Amino acid sequence: MNREEEFMHSALELAKEAESEHEIPVGAVIVFNNEIISTGRNRREISQNSLAHAEIEAIDSACRVLRSWRLIDCELYVTLEPCPMCTGAIINSRISRLIYGAYDYKAGSCNSLINLFDLPYNHKPEVVSGVLEDKCSAILTDFFKNLRKTKPKGISRH
Amino acid sequence: MNREEEFMHSALELAKEAESEHEIPVGAVIVFNNEIISTGRNRREISQNSLAHAEIEAIDSACRVLRSWRLIDCELYVTLEPCPMCTGAIINSRISRLIYGAYDYKAGSCNSLINLFDLPYNHKPEVVSGVLEDKCSAILTDFFKNLRKTKPKGISRH
Repeated sequence: MNREEEFMHSALELAKEAESEHEIPVGAVIVFNNEIISTGRNRREISQNSLAHAEIEAIDSACRVLRSWRLIDCELYVTLEPCPMCTGAIINSRISRLIYGAYDYKAGSCNSLINLFDLPYNHKPEVVSGVLEDKCSAILTDFFKNLRKTKPKGISRH
Repeated sequence: MNREEEFMHSALELAKEAESEHEIPVGAVIVFNNEIISTGRNRREISQNSLAHAEIEAIDSACRVLRSWRLIDCELYVTLEPCPMCTGAIINSRISRLIYGAYDYKAGSCNSLINLFDLPYNHKPEVVSGVLEDKCSAILTDFFKNLRKTKPKGISRH
């Protein structure tokens, strides 16, 4: 595995943790100076909080670690293309590079539904997409396949 | 004042509190069953957290109050047009109505730079704009006027 695949692998491990708690499996890590300084995973159902996406948790934690709202020179690795809230949080926190795995054709806002980075906001990170895409996509596909089998109530994808 | 102006007035009071702490003056309240159930104000500098927008604070708090990530039948009042992060958070939390005061021509994502609610995400709230616009706009204009006079470092609008 190359460097980016290794960090995405760490994000995937967090996605698996989310899955084990019956959350939609999405995981994220933030890297600064080649080290993971914060992690996040989807906790929307368990926390009953609409903000509890993997990226938001990782950004919140990274701001505390660096004691700054500016996450300059930080990379965010996330298993799924960010939604508009998380894409906006990436803009607001000045993250330098975004690396994501699977595409989100329903709500992805860095490519699929729209690319918010193409608009004239005051920050535009470098973006790499499709890193470990097959694995990042498979864990989601399997989750929803199992969900349809067991049919629990109250979980929708977004 | 009509009903909407009264709730916007409460949001303006929170914007003034932010201003008194040298934060960009933006305030928000969430209303459910005609009562304010949560409040928020910009705290980005004091908390050194890029997520600390008024709307995010109010949404986070409302999820805790209602013990649900779905803020159905809730209204969000905010003094400034939401940025992409906060617009995305409104979509994710299923807020039914958004009422905002001043337009944000640099980052506003419900009208000015883009209207994200026009895209096929899975939720689209009712939107009312320009409520107490003059007051909501003046508090921001005055803040930046004073900022240019005193020239402190490290505060940018976004």
